[in-house]
Amino acid sequence: MIDRFLKIREDSEQLCKSLLIEDYSVQAIEFTSPPKWHLAHTTWFWEEFILTKHAVNYSVYDEDFSFLFNSYYNNVGKRVLRPLRGLMTRPSVNEVYIYRKYVTDAMVTFLNTNPNNEILDVIEIGINHEEQHQELLAYDIKYTLGNQPTFPSYKNSYKTKVENQAASFIKIKAGLYEIGHQESSFCFDNELGKHKVYVNDFEISNKLVTNREYLDFIIAGGYQNFNFWHDEGWSWVNTNSIVAPLYWYKIESEWWNYSSSGLDKVDLDLPVMHISFYEAFAYCEWKGYRLPTEFEWEIASDQLQWGQLWEWTNSAYLAYPGFNKLAGALGEYNGKFMINQMILRGASVATPEGHSRKTYRNFFQPNMRWQFNGLRLAK
Amino acid sequence: MIDRFLKIREDSEQLCKSLLIEDYSVQAIEFTSPPKWHLAHTTWFWEEFILTKHAVNYSVYDEDFSFLFNSYYNNVGKRVLRPLRGLMTRPSVNEVYIYRKYVTDAMVTFLNTNPNNEILDVIEIGINHEEQHQELLAYDIKYTLGNQPTFPSYKNSYKTKVENQAASFIKIKAGLYEIGHQESSFCFDNELGKHKVYVNDFEISNKLVTNREYLDFIIAGGYQNFNFWHDEGWSWVNTNSIVAPLYWYKIESEWWNYSSSGLDKVDLDLPVMHISFYEAFAYCEWKGYRLPTEFEWEIASDQLQWGQLWEWTNSAYLAYPGFNKLAGALGEYNGKFMINQMILRGASVATPEGHSRKTYRNFFQPNMRWQFNGLRLAK
Amino acid sequence: MIDRFLKIREDSEQLCKSLLIEDYSVQAIEFTSPPKWHLAHTTWFWEEFILTKHAVNYSVYDEDFSFLFNSYYNNVGKRVLRPLRGLMTRPSVNEVYIYRKYVTDAMVTFLNTNPNNEILDVIEIGINHEEQHQELLAYDIKYTLGNQPTFPSYKNSYKTKVENQAASFIKIKAGLYEIGHQESSFCFDNELGKHKVYVNDFEISNKLVTNREYLDFIIAGGYQNFNFWHDEGWSWVNTNSIVAPLYWYKIESEWWNYSSSGLDKVDLDLPVMHISFYEAFAYCEWKGYRLPTEFEWEIASDQLQWGQLWEWTNSAYLAYPGFNKLAGALGEYNGKFMINQMILRGASVATPEGHSRKTYRNFFQPNMRWQFNGLRLAK
Amino acid sequence: MIDRFLKIREDSEQLCKSLLIEDYSVQAIEFTSPPKWHLAHTTWFWEEFILTKHAVNYSVYDEDFSFLFNSYYNNVGKRVLRPLRGLMTRPSVNEVYIYRKYVTDAMVTFLNTNPNNEILDVIEIGINHEEQHQELLAYDIKYTLGNQPTFPSYKNSYKTKVENQAASFIKIKAGLYEIGHQESSFCFDNELGKHKVYVNDFEISNKLVTNREYLDFIIAGGYQNFNFWHDEGWSWVNTNSIVAPLYWYKIESEWWNYSSSGLDKVDLDLPVMHISFYEAFAYCEWKGYRLPTEFEWEIASDQLQWGQLWEWTNSAYLAYPGFNKLAGALGEYNGKFMINQMILRGASVATPEGHSRKTYRNFFQPNMRWQFNGLRLAK
Repeated sequence: MIDRFLKIREDSEQLCKSLLIEDYSVQAIEFTSPPKWHLAHTTWFWEEFILTKHAVNYSVYDEDFSFLFNSYYNNVGKRVLRPLRGLMTRPSVNEVYIYRKYVTDAMVTFLNTNPNNEILDVIEIGINHEEQHQELLAYDIKYTLGNQPTFPSYKNSYKTKVENQAASFIKIKAGLYEIGHQESSFCFDNELGKHKVYVNDFEISNKLVTNREYLDFIIAGGYQNFNFWHDEGWSWVNTNSIVAPLYWYKIESEWWNYSSSGLDKVDLDLPVMHISFYEAFAYCEWKGYRLPTEFEWEIASDQLQWGQLWEWTNSAYLAYPGFNKLAGALGEYNGKFMINQMILRGASVATPEGHSRKTYRNFFQPNMRWQFNGLRLAK
Repeated sequence: MIDRFLKIREDSEQLCKSLLIEDYSVQAIEFTSPPKWHLAHTTWFWEEFILTKHAVNYSVYDEDFSFLFNSYYNNVGKRVLRPLRGLMTRPSVNEVYIYRKYVTDAMVTFLNTNPNNEILDVIEIGINHEEQHQELLAYDIKYTLGNQPTFPSYKNSYKTKVENQAASFIKIKAGLYEIGHQESSFCFDNELGKHKVYVNDFEISNKLVTNREYLDFIIAGGYQNFNFWHDEGWSWVNTNSIVAPLYWYKIESEWWNYSSSGLDKVDLDLPVMHISFYEAFAYCEWKGYRLPTEFEWEIASDQLQWGQLWEWTNSAYLAYPGFNKLAGALGEYNGKFMINQMILRGASVATPEGHSRKTYRNFFQPNMRWQFNGLRLAK
Repeated sequence: MIDRFLKIREDSEQLCKSLLIEDYSVQAIEFTSPPKWHLAHTTWFWEEFILTKHAVNYSVYDEDFSFLFNSYYNNVGKRVLRPLRGLMTRPSVNEVYIYRKYVTDAMVTFLNTNPNNEILDVIEIGINHEEQHQELLAYDIKYTLGNQPTFPSYKNSYKTKVENQAASFIKIKAGLYEIGHQESSFCFDNELGKHKVYVNDFEISNKLVTNREYLDFIIAGGYQNFNFWHDEGWSWVNTNSIVAPLYWYKIESEWWNYSSSGLDKVDLDLPVMHISFYEAFAYCEWKGYRLPTEFEWEIASDQLQWGQLWEWTNSAYLAYPGFNKLAGALGEYNGKFMINQMILRGASVATPEGHSRKTYRNFFQPNMRWQFNGLRLAK
Repeated sequence: MIDRFLKIREDSEQLCKSLLIEDYSVQAIEFTSPPKWHLAHTTWFWEEFILTKHAVNYSVYDEDFSFLFNSYYNNVGKRVLRPLRGLMTRPSVNEVYIYRKYVTDAMVTFLNTNPNNEILDVIEIGINHEEQHQELLAYDIKYTLGNQPTFPSYKNSYKTKVENQAASFIKIKAGLYEIGHQESSFCFDNELGKHKVYVNDFEISNKLVTNREYLDFIIAGGYQNFNFWHDEGWSWVNTNSIVAPLYWYKIESEWWNYSSSGLDKVDLDLPVMHISFYEAFAYCEWKGYRLPTEFEWEIASDQLQWGQLWEWTNSAYLAYPGFNKLAGALGEYNGKFMINQMILRGASVATPEGHSRKTYRNFFQPNMRWQFNGLRLAK
């Protein structure tokens, strides 16, 4: 457990190693957070939920940090409003790293005291929590750098790959299936409640939609034809003048997009990424297909190659039968977001190793597209 | 069919009979429409989808009206933006009534020509469409008058009744159930796709939650405790300073509410109405219950007394398996709203007679509460 | 005095005689008010400042009306927020006319009691107040009808005329001049404080700028060249996509504009009207001239033909030396607006007879252009 | 000239010496700019207006910088929108310092070539421009640090002093006075046009209003009484919940304020600072005095101790008679802001030495209060 804990802590810092100090504090848009904030918040989580509660003689690093680095746990007290995270120039990046070391050391000391199983369960949540923030770090760093007028490149290993297999649709028989987490290993509360779901016959593609296929939709005028769009999606397209996925730029009649290597021509063979649910839906409408539901996806998952990009489904993020949120502040982790968000299944190249499973329920508002997502057709 | 058509037309006008001319044109808030607009729009619908397409030698009453009174059919052309409907003082109320008579007469002439079944299907939609607008008229008139500083009373028959039966929970066994419309009679496209759904054992209340019960929630501080709320709901409560259902006013420590008879003390025995989905959900959380899903509701419906108020369910408005929207403009009727809305089941005292059925899927955004809704507990 | 009072009251109603009931209640945009509101507010003014204070045994028509029809007098109590004036469907237009008659009759009775001079002074203000609202009625009716998709015509006599005299610049010598009201007749408090102002030599045009001349500015790209504009004006032009004066529409490469006779081709010989201060300034910059100051205008006024349109000056609305606002609520009449507004001098075709004088200081924010204004060059 | 130039360049950097790298990039609110931006923009100014135009063989440091660091010169081309300046993490602070050195060196080389008088005039503007940004740096750094939840202190020398002289009013006789710059030394275009202004008898205080005096206004309920405020000011107070000057915080019934030494109790003897024009005006109304005009201030200035804080006047920022803006981009320096701004006269403790004179016309919108300002009474 100590090794795993230390690896997680080290991984978060590695993700930021190629950043300049200047990059750490910026919040480029309301829904992202500065890298410095992620590094401090994941640290505060350990301090708040483990050390101050269970570690004997633990002395809080700085009383102010709870106010500064709480994310959305109303049970824990007041906090800096989300859109203002980017204005905190203090504590400095350097001090945040010192804070991290202080808490990491205290945690190692604490882990050596053989905490009981109940505490180990919270530590497991803490590890998964920090892993989730590692993925968010990937999204937010890309967003910040991708919105610099100079499109700087940066080091990382988030490369998607071309899916070379021949395209086909996998056929699944109608019937009653078991859905939800059923093993003894860790999962979030929203995956629990293993339960039966009936699905009709369906077919699901063995590949993600590619940039080439998506470009056909653009060229066919998909962004100009309201018939393919939800009413709300059509309004979103027009209000925001959307004409392509996020990070795509048309330069002298050719499409370029931004990735960690800077601004390059769109690679047509790669899976399309950075699209909203509205766009995923509109593409399906235009193509004459539909998105799978999250149940269909889970049922078919063993026959799919997945893990490159989170896949939009046509399922709303709602409670499974018998859903029980955790008591106290950790109960705010998942349940309170179960409205107006759509489920994504799978994982992405930015998902930490070991963090993914087929029952995992990721969720975002339908207009969000800075996360690493894509789409897979069903019918 | 002619008698039924004439009744529908007459009913719409009856609903407005107690209004002053001044009341007809006002749009009190973006999501309502002026009564004059409803009367004209339902008329334009007949002109657009029946008369101009199928009636020989029909002469359009006024070419401008398509621009003025189209609601949201992008396929039909440009239209006045929704928030500006209340600024149209012309045509006058009187002229709209003349327009109604002109189109009603032309429809009667046309109906006497024995239109074919395909056309009769669209006429059936037109009747149901006008019935839906009759219900919206009830909502919008109440909203306009209920926001006059003087709280005027007005005549109508939308009275809810006290549910006198002893309170109990109806138990339903787990199993596979058939969901969706299966008879030959009319239904909307979103109810089609009769299909199997598996549900677990559940229980559902035989009564709607009353004002007395809801007041307990208010008194217990329900609106001040974030633990009962969705994150988005909590933000809605705080941004809008919500402390009670719509139309409730606290006057010298007593609760009053506005209805068609003006401002009166809240009748504690009546079902609570005019709450958002957020509030319905928070009430359940506080009470230790949950909302039923739309499937549970439909399965249990034959054992419920329903029809007083639309009942919030915990189901998102999504397509049934095999959903096919209609071709052309009428395809915009339902499908394009299948995102970020929640299902309400049942009917209300403002629902026209004959317009309700247990498979009916009503839907609104979770913050909407001017419609006639209530809630029923499940567990 | 009674005759004059009755004429004023009658004139306000005459202005509305060609309106439909539907036109009376609409507030087309935040800065306009519904005609019904003007009719009621000017009536409330008499009730509030004369009858309830001085008339023996006067019984207030309706206690609610003070809340409904107060405009901006904080000293008098709470009031309906300005943007919500258009939502008041009650009292009806008919009742407002009954209210007017009730108050007019009570005022006549009161005037027959020979009120003292101090009261007569307030009555004088009341008459001037109602005259100001008559002019606002003209602006607001035009705005409401001019924003109907059908551009209805309506009766009135607000016609500007072609200025036929030969164009020339009047030369005025530098020197010390007396500015401000100096006669015994009525004026507003902001005109008082007769005082000396030194002006340099200047020249001022004997004519208003015409539509033809203004069109040259449009054709020359005046709306596309930031060099002619204030920074704030340039932002206003771009944010609001301004390309011509208010009520101008380009239809198949020709310019039309809306007036009381409906939509017609722009008459190139008439003075340009309905432009903002920003546009007036930009036109001058392009033409190589400037706007006169309010002092220059007043000094030159006896040599000018004025009164067709209010004329933008390059003077900010600020207090004259020794400015004393009235005590109590009437002190709110003028003084509290002395920031971020610019002075217009002269009068317009909508100014009631006898309401204009050369010392009159009209004022509006620089982006306002629904008032009847124009511009005159100086150098 | 070279020494003076080098001193200016060095001074700008000295102002930032106590900042962390993290502090350099933040834009805390739309009207401030990041310190890094100031350092780069003042450098770009030299490059754009001197080096690229006049220096032989000068090679632009980075073509992108013109886009990144242009402020508001439309004539020079596109630029990063002002509210987005805080999102530019690249170039780094380090690179901006390298850029500064590159341009400073090139300027020194160029200055050694004995540029002609016309160029020297632009260099003079460049020096004054950089001095103005030094003052803005003081405002913006204070704003950024003063909005950190931790209120960090930082080094500087911007200390105001207690004015110890006995309070009195200086009497000035009515008469014609010469206003505007009349010496051969440098001034901005908006100070030119020496001209006569007639003023009445007036009196002006020999001291600035103190925190003690201003606190009396707060305690007397000045912020709760609309009678003291402009209509627009009253709306500003209520919309923004203003109850005290900027940087004031009430902690357990005592007033503290933020300065470069951190958060301390308000020193009652110091001049009040950081108030809007609205507050300055309201204070005067409450006290029964008024603000001086900019002409009165200039006439009295030789008898005043001034220079601690910019002093609000009751004069709008408008052109002097015969105002001529400079040709080309530098013409955008002053003239285009002559609307909806009020004049401040004097100087502040953050004004660079040698940058102040009695004819200097500073200007801000009436709601701005992060600049170092105060007020002086007149009557």
